[in-house]
Amino acid sequence: MKDPARRLVAEFVGTAFLLATVVGSGIMAETLSPDNVGVALAGNTLATAAMLVVLILIYGPVSGAHFNPAVTLAFTLRRDITVGEAAAYVVVQVAGALAGTMLAHVMFDQPLLVASQQARTGVGQWTGELVATFSLVAAILGCLKWRPDAVPWAVGLAIAGGYWYTSSTSFANPAVTIARSLTDTFSGILPAHAPAFIAAQCAGAIAAVLLFGWLLRRT
Amino acid sequence: MKDPARRLVAEFVGTAFLLATVVGSGIMAETLSPDNVGVALAGNTLATAAMLVVLILIYGPVSGAHFNPAVTLAFTLRRDITVGEAAAYVVVQVAGALAGTMLAHVMFDQPLLVASQQARTGVGQWTGELVATFSLVAAILGCLKWRPDAVPWAVGLAIAGGYWYTSSTSFANPAVTIARSLTDTFSGILPAHAPAFIAAQCAGAIAAVLLFGWLLRRT
Amino acid sequence: MKDPARRLVAEFVGTAFLLATVVGSGIMAETLSPDNVGVALAGNTLATAAMLVVLILIYGPVSGAHFNPAVTLAFTLRRDITVGEAAAYVVVQVAGALAGTMLAHVMFDQPLLVASQQARTGVGQWTGELVATFSLVAAILGCLKWRPDAVPWAVGLAIAGGYWYTSSTSFANPAVTIARSLTDTFSGILPAHAPAFIAAQCAGAIAAVLLFGWLLRRT
Amino acid sequence: MKDPARRLVAEFVGTAFLLATVVGSGIMAETLSPDNVGVALAGNTLATAAMLVVLILIYGPVSGAHFNPAVTLAFTLRRDITVGEAAAYVVVQVAGALAGTMLAHVMFDQPLLVASQQARTGVGQWTGELVATFSLVAAILGCLKWRPDAVPWAVGLAIAGGYWYTSSTSFANPAVTIARSLTDTFSGILPAHAPAFIAAQCAGAIAAVLLFGWLLRRT
Repeated sequence: MKDPARRLVAEFVGTAFLLATVVGSGIMAETLSPDNVGVALAGNTLATAAMLVVLILIYGPVSGAHFNPAVTLAFTLRRDITVGEAAAYVVVQVAGALAGTMLAHVMFDQPLLVASQQARTGVGQWTGELVATFSLVAAILGCLKWRPDAVPWAVGLAIAGGYWYTSSTSFANPAVTIARSLTDTFSGILPAHAPAFIAAQCAGAIAAVLLFGWLLRRT
Repeated sequence: MKDPARRLVAEFVGTAFLLATVVGSGIMAETLSPDNVGVALAGNTLATAAMLVVLILIYGPVSGAHFNPAVTLAFTLRRDITVGEAAAYVVVQVAGALAGTMLAHVMFDQPLLVASQQARTGVGQWTGELVATFSLVAAILGCLKWRPDAVPWAVGLAIAGGYWYTSSTSFANPAVTIARSLTDTFSGILPAHAPAFIAAQCAGAIAAVLLFGWLLRRT
Repeated sequence: MKDPARRLVAEFVGTAFLLATVVGSGIMAETLSPDNVGVALAGNTLATAAMLVVLILIYGPVSGAHFNPAVTLAFTLRRDITVGEAAAYVVVQVAGALAGTMLAHVMFDQPLLVASQQARTGVGQWTGELVATFSLVAAILGCLKWRPDAVPWAVGLAIAGGYWYTSSTSFANPAVTIARSLTDTFSGILPAHAPAFIAAQCAGAIAAVLLFGWLLRRT
Repeated sequence: MKDPARRLVAEFVGTAFLLATVVGSGIMAETLSPDNVGVALAGNTLATAAMLVVLILIYGPVSGAHFNPAVTLAFTLRRDITVGEAAAYVVVQVAGALAGTMLAHVMFDQPLLVASQQARTGVGQWTGELVATFSLVAAILGCLKWRPDAVPWAVGLAIAGGYWYTSSTSFANPAVTIARSLTDTFSGILPAHAPAFIAAQCAGAIAAVLLFGWLLRRT
């Protein structure tokens, strides 16, 4: 891996800010609009999508701005990065996700890390995670092929849409899923329910790699 | 038709995701904000517009990203595609729309397909559909002429606006109309009321083709 | 004026769609969220800004997409168009604004045109109109100089912002003001209060022309 | 400093409009949705982000569009501007911020300037300001390096996100903090609590300069 220190630091800081955003805006939104969950989810969506665009704009040229083991899996399957690089990426993504969750908790005077009580399970929600991650990876692969400058915007929009049209509110990211199992706030997920989400996310990423491998193949 | 398999698959998958978004975000929004329909429509709008931009960015270079028989009609009238290609497009668009509606129903634990009970009729709403589809086709033709890179954004914005300023909330798409007649949720339309919507949509598309044929004609 | 028919039709249709959007989305928003005016204004803002971007993208290359006598005044002061062209523009802008208001009323089953009962007056609101129109014309002149491709986006954003930070909700357009005096809905203004709004709008446009004439002058 | 009059006027007018937006939209939002603070913050967010994009688009090519002593500090540390230029910038930024706050108060019939009663303090909120200002300066430095055209959008999005994910709602600007201590409305901050916010903002700016100095260094 060329210049590994910068790349891994970019993945760590970017994933940390992503989680600080997801968890922090969830706490803010629920505090401000406890009786109107639609408004709360709108605030959570707005913040997450806005920061995704910013983080991919500024860290993308350094590390590719995966921030997401499912995205790293997709690039590994396409042989864009090696298995060793991918392993290092996933480690710093998970570490960054935990650090960002703690940062959100410090900002909002919560305990550093605490297991979530929020049940998120069932075939409907697992289908949601598969769909959401397929959509995210499709957005990345499609834009990289035709309009690489649009990647940050497409990712922000795919996640913003996913927060509303998938029954699971579009975690779409194993590192995010692990970190959100350790916050007992709006965005949390019961730790026991995390593995099925992660499995569905990997399946969605693989499906997108297969479909877009065929759709975008030179003929 | 060059490379028909890829083009038809792109139309099918894209239209399926469009309907999963419209129907799914409608269910989510109504569930979260049952007492404030404005908030619910805002969530529905946000998700639909965001995903339209993404879907057109990634499938546009493959199939043109019509996802809409009224758009296919417009390109057929302009002789950009043949009648045979158009017929194949419309078939996969309707099939994709039904598949996407079923996908939303799976995600939200609803019956696969069920007739809507939601009345949507009257001169006001038919005018709304004519206006909405005119606006959509105008956005596409105008941007294709002057700034093709802006098409995905213009389509997302034209539909986002249309959800609020047309009395019919801007279906603007016969395949979407058929599929939405088979969901008994926020975004549904009584099957008996669908044909008039579709007629108004075709009229709007034709009007836009006529006006922009003149406005953009080289002189 | 080169190709006057197309230019005047573009101004007419564009201004009509702008008013259909402003008036129509106001009716929709107030109907959906009668008890939460913040949500209603958010829907009104979203629709207006979205359609402004679309309309300027598609009609801008034909007519300049003024849709606004205050903008036409600014370009006249800068000698970008002649007084005769400006007069013709203003006539079709006002006619288009009235047509668009009637179109919104048809869509929402309202009387075609009816005087508004909504008082909007006072030094605070007049200051708001001056500020809003200054901001709009500044956005246009500044972007035209440095990044002409950004004009549609800057106009949409300047009006979206103005709906919230100016006490008058940013009419910023004499044709819009006249047309909105003839709708007794969310977006209306008492006809007797329109002239002071229009005067403040012209003052704001002139101030922006003066400041940006100096700021952007080649040195 | 080349052409100092234009640069300082651009910083003054731009910062004034930024504060008119922040304070004015706060008053509007709280008036429209007094019982749903989430909706109010959404309106405040929308207006602030929209106007930041516009103001940076039009004043950026003149003055750099800092509008913010913390941003000026960052460029001074990077030796992009001299200490003397920076001092002049900070003076007009603070003056512009006060003028813009007064303008908002005139629009909304409030006293010209009055001390805020709104407590905003504690380790959580100070951390929020450090994070918010780090994120803002990172967005600027990262985009300036890779995609300078994206700076206006990245700044608008970084502040929009920050309004929701930081516990302090992302002032991220010492001139804004001083001016907001003099409005007794939605966006205010108790004057006694302003200095700690400003210290945290400077720390965040310095941290971003250090990290991005290393991340973006040519190797």
